[in-house]
Amino acid sequence: MAVDNPRTATLLMHCPDRPGVVAAVTRFLAGHGANIVDLDQHVDRAEGVFFMRVRWELEGFALDAEAFSEAFRTTIAEHFQAIWQLHHNARPLRMALFVSKMSHCLYDLLSRWQSGEWHVEVPLIISNHETLRPVAEQFGIPFHCFPITADNRAEQEAAERELLERHAVDLAVLARYMQIVGPTLIDAFPQRIINIHHSFLPAFAGAKPYHAAHARGVKIIGATSHYVTADLDAGPIIEQDVTRITHRDSVEALVRKGQDLEKLVLARGIWAHLQRQTLVYQNRTIVFS
Amino acid sequence: MAVDNPRTATLLMHCPDRPGVVAAVTRFLAGHGANIVDLDQHVDRAEGVFFMRVRWELEGFALDAEAFSEAFRTTIAEHFQAIWQLHHNARPLRMALFVSKMSHCLYDLLSRWQSGEWHVEVPLIISNHETLRPVAEQFGIPFHCFPITADNRAEQEAAERELLERHAVDLAVLARYMQIVGPTLIDAFPQRIINIHHSFLPAFAGAKPYHAAHARGVKIIGATSHYVTADLDAGPIIEQDVTRITHRDSVEALVRKGQDLEKLVLARGIWAHLQRQTLVYQNRTIVFS
Amino acid sequence: MAVDNPRTATLLMHCPDRPGVVAAVTRFLAGHGANIVDLDQHVDRAEGVFFMRVRWELEGFALDAEAFSEAFRTTIAEHFQAIWQLHHNARPLRMALFVSKMSHCLYDLLSRWQSGEWHVEVPLIISNHETLRPVAEQFGIPFHCFPITADNRAEQEAAERELLERHAVDLAVLARYMQIVGPTLIDAFPQRIINIHHSFLPAFAGAKPYHAAHARGVKIIGATSHYVTADLDAGPIIEQDVTRITHRDSVEALVRKGQDLEKLVLARGIWAHLQRQTLVYQNRTIVFS
Amino acid sequence: MAVDNPRTATLLMHCPDRPGVVAAVTRFLAGHGANIVDLDQHVDRAEGVFFMRVRWELEGFALDAEAFSEAFRTTIAEHFQAIWQLHHNARPLRMALFVSKMSHCLYDLLSRWQSGEWHVEVPLIISNHETLRPVAEQFGIPFHCFPITADNRAEQEAAERELLERHAVDLAVLARYMQIVGPTLIDAFPQRIINIHHSFLPAFAGAKPYHAAHARGVKIIGATSHYVTADLDAGPIIEQDVTRITHRDSVEALVRKGQDLEKLVLARGIWAHLQRQTLVYQNRTIVFS
Repeated sequence: MAVDNPRTATLLMHCPDRPGVVAAVTRFLAGHGANIVDLDQHVDRAEGVFFMRVRWELEGFALDAEAFSEAFRTTIAEHFQAIWQLHHNARPLRMALFVSKMSHCLYDLLSRWQSGEWHVEVPLIISNHETLRPVAEQFGIPFHCFPITADNRAEQEAAERELLERHAVDLAVLARYMQIVGPTLIDAFPQRIINIHHSFLPAFAGAKPYHAAHARGVKIIGATSHYVTADLDAGPIIEQDVTRITHRDSVEALVRKGQDLEKLVLARGIWAHLQRQTLVYQNRTIVFS
Repeated sequence: MAVDNPRTATLLMHCPDRPGVVAAVTRFLAGHGANIVDLDQHVDRAEGVFFMRVRWELEGFALDAEAFSEAFRTTIAEHFQAIWQLHHNARPLRMALFVSKMSHCLYDLLSRWQSGEWHVEVPLIISNHETLRPVAEQFGIPFHCFPITADNRAEQEAAERELLERHAVDLAVLARYMQIVGPTLIDAFPQRIINIHHSFLPAFAGAKPYHAAHARGVKIIGATSHYVTADLDAGPIIEQDVTRITHRDSVEALVRKGQDLEKLVLARGIWAHLQRQTLVYQNRTIVFS
Repeated sequence: MAVDNPRTATLLMHCPDRPGVVAAVTRFLAGHGANIVDLDQHVDRAEGVFFMRVRWELEGFALDAEAFSEAFRTTIAEHFQAIWQLHHNARPLRMALFVSKMSHCLYDLLSRWQSGEWHVEVPLIISNHETLRPVAEQFGIPFHCFPITADNRAEQEAAERELLERHAVDLAVLARYMQIVGPTLIDAFPQRIINIHHSFLPAFAGAKPYHAAHARGVKIIGATSHYVTADLDAGPIIEQDVTRITHRDSVEALVRKGQDLEKLVLARGIWAHLQRQTLVYQNRTIVFS
Repeated sequence: MAVDNPRTATLLMHCPDRPGVVAAVTRFLAGHGANIVDLDQHVDRAEGVFFMRVRWELEGFALDAEAFSEAFRTTIAEHFQAIWQLHHNARPLRMALFVSKMSHCLYDLLSRWQSGEWHVEVPLIISNHETLRPVAEQFGIPFHCFPITADNRAEQEAAERELLERHAVDLAVLARYMQIVGPTLIDAFPQRIINIHHSFLPAFAGAKPYHAAHARGVKIIGATSHYVTADLDAGPIIEQDVTRITHRDSVEALVRKGQDLEKLVLARGIWAHLQRQTLVYQNRTIVFS
């Protein structure tokens, strides 16, 4: 499941469902010398769409990225009307972190990066507050503060976007970034911004979900990691998890228990993205195994 | 936790929080010869309210129900402005079941009754359809069919209410009863009607929650048992649980997986009520341990 | 995931891992007109073994069972040294139930059968005690009692085996059958006897697992459904699940909470078998999705 | 549940079960001006032992630690033969961390300390390897390396013990410390050493539990935090949790998924200890709510 060997490539594709897709793709790959490591496919019968993820070893594979693109297009993609992405896994993804004042997700993500648990680079941290600059410095990551107001959002996001592009960022992670992200950023990074929301969406979307959960008297709280879209807290869900609470838990206790969930659910969502296991279709996320 | 010995009594109470309540109540009980079996208390600091459940053995206890009522009122309740209920656990509760066409919860509840797992009586089953009459007959429980339309609801519910009262029903369980319950019944059985809703409330309240969950692309589905109030699917929650799903699960698969959850969450909610572990305050349910 | 359409066939196979298996199998199926509904494959890299499950629609498929067997053998199986099974899903499996005195799993399984939730037949119930005969009769299933002692086991099991074979039983389910099953039965039904063990195996194998769990002070209890082999409680695991407990839970409370787990874990294990999702390799169970 | 207000004291006690204990203790506290914040009691009927945890506000409480000790002893403890501990919550506990080469738990614990999530001090880190010295330095915590061999264990542990005592350490945490701890340390810190074991104990005690879990083909893996006793991996369990795995997960995947569990289960175990919610009796841990 993990990228045990970075000398692999991953293909993600979907197309109208019809007989013979798996046979055609696997024959194509085998024909160019691919040793397939993972293959997972899914048919959404209600939509009539076929989805597939294949990962294979690059050693012995005859095609470089350009040659693959040309050959796959003419042999498979045009025939099956497939939409596809090819990823070479040797290059670590470059992940930018957005934070505000809460540190728990930031510490968790930086620990996974620094310890080498994740095959990523973290070129920069962006915040709308100075609060967490010392944590960034302790881990040796450049920290950029862009205070946001209703008046300056578009301008500040344009500057953030320029910074992200200059650092060749692949993925932006909102690690409890308590600020609405506008179209300037969202349009520039489609399905490449992951947010953690501190509730079991769609329950308790919006602000103060722990207060709302406490007021409603639920017996379980949750967290949700999802791709960010223009609709607040309504983007395609990657991962969710929950934890049990009781009437004894005050709002403060929910916040404390929820933080552990947020760390875990955000990390799992990012991991699925890093592994190229995710494919978004009609606001839902296929998470291949 | 279970009523291992039915020769016990349970006191549920709440009052404004102030020092000395536990001391006063336990001294009162000890003074009349009670051997306390369970004691659980909770203080809601935000509301300033004290909650307690105490269960004690009746053997050696000096007061019968009437004497307890008089003594407790003058010694404790008036002083602390307590609201309280006393339950003798020897008598099995009388539980009526409301069903429509789906049988999974009905089978589960009847099995728990017939096997003696639960210390209850099931005097009757009420339905708005004939579909499940054979199941009722197989288990030897009288089955009453009241078809409901927009026009006849009040009238039919009045007849149901009369039937429930005639059978001295303590608790009505809506075991996937696909029909809105109106004020005629709700007002007659406050905090004595338990419903199972097939979602993780407050997400996906109302009709067709599995369809809505599938459309939203959630990664976890849930079920909720709650007391029925005038606000649809908004009554005090007793118990919730969840199960993990993936993009592979069609709506039909969610229905199938959800049914197992519904059985479990409804049974746990009823069990807590039977054990007199529940106390409702401001639309939230304290579930004592 | 469910057999939404029984007009399908399922192929389960494994073989030494080498390039081209998926391509060969899917090309073979497509070439005979199969529309593939599900395909899941897995490579065990440590063992160097390839596993696959494919399900396709029989409508339009050119081969009957015999023709498939011949064509698949010569085209695929010999070349890849594959071990394989083909199942036509139209025929309901015939499932025998073994019980002793506890009824919770029996009620649950009979309810799933009678309600039509499962596409199975239940030709008979076997027990070593008379206790549950009334439940069998209530559901209209023949009940056979074979009291077992150390002296008569082989003889009684031979009679049971004869009965199972006479009723063309496909699957035997030990639904809290509190009796060791010997080689007479195990050898006759390899990977076709499913047991529920009331612990999280391999913890607390053997007798009285709830007592052992209580004594050890664990904070979580579990249940395990597995195929029965000659090694007691050591066969290939199909499904496990757990539930949280606390120091408040007596052994009796563990038994009560555990029973709900047992019902669920046994039902899920059987479901996976009925769906032909399971494949045993070296005492581990692949459960395809 | 959390120590929202450190100006509180916590009493943990147990005694032979007999009527009137709660009444006596709460009357005693109320009589000296205590406002009780939490009270949780438990009766182990099989053992005939009563357990209680009470927490109250120190503001307005008439007794200092010494006066409490004298008054409680004569008024309550002697009469009821109670074993008890009193903790003032204003003082942060001093927690030493033991590590080897794996960093995930270390990062997690240091993050909780540095962010102020936990009301603790971390005076030192002890390791049998140099590997994690840079992490300790990054967080500004003194790091002491004591390589252990079969020959020098007693001597090295004596030095470690001296160091812990010199730093007035209250609690030692084995954060994936891959080294057996001997009697020199265990005897000096009874019920004050917490270990994380990377399995669902008692399954897979000892070395390489993920390899053993993979070989057995379990469908769920777990982690266990427990107090360390002379019996390896057999001390009183504080907290356990599990995560679901499939046949797709290699040993490496189990290790990766397990690490997130280990972090969480160790943190929860420590939190319960810090909150003075734990009381050990006969190798089992009461965890009060």
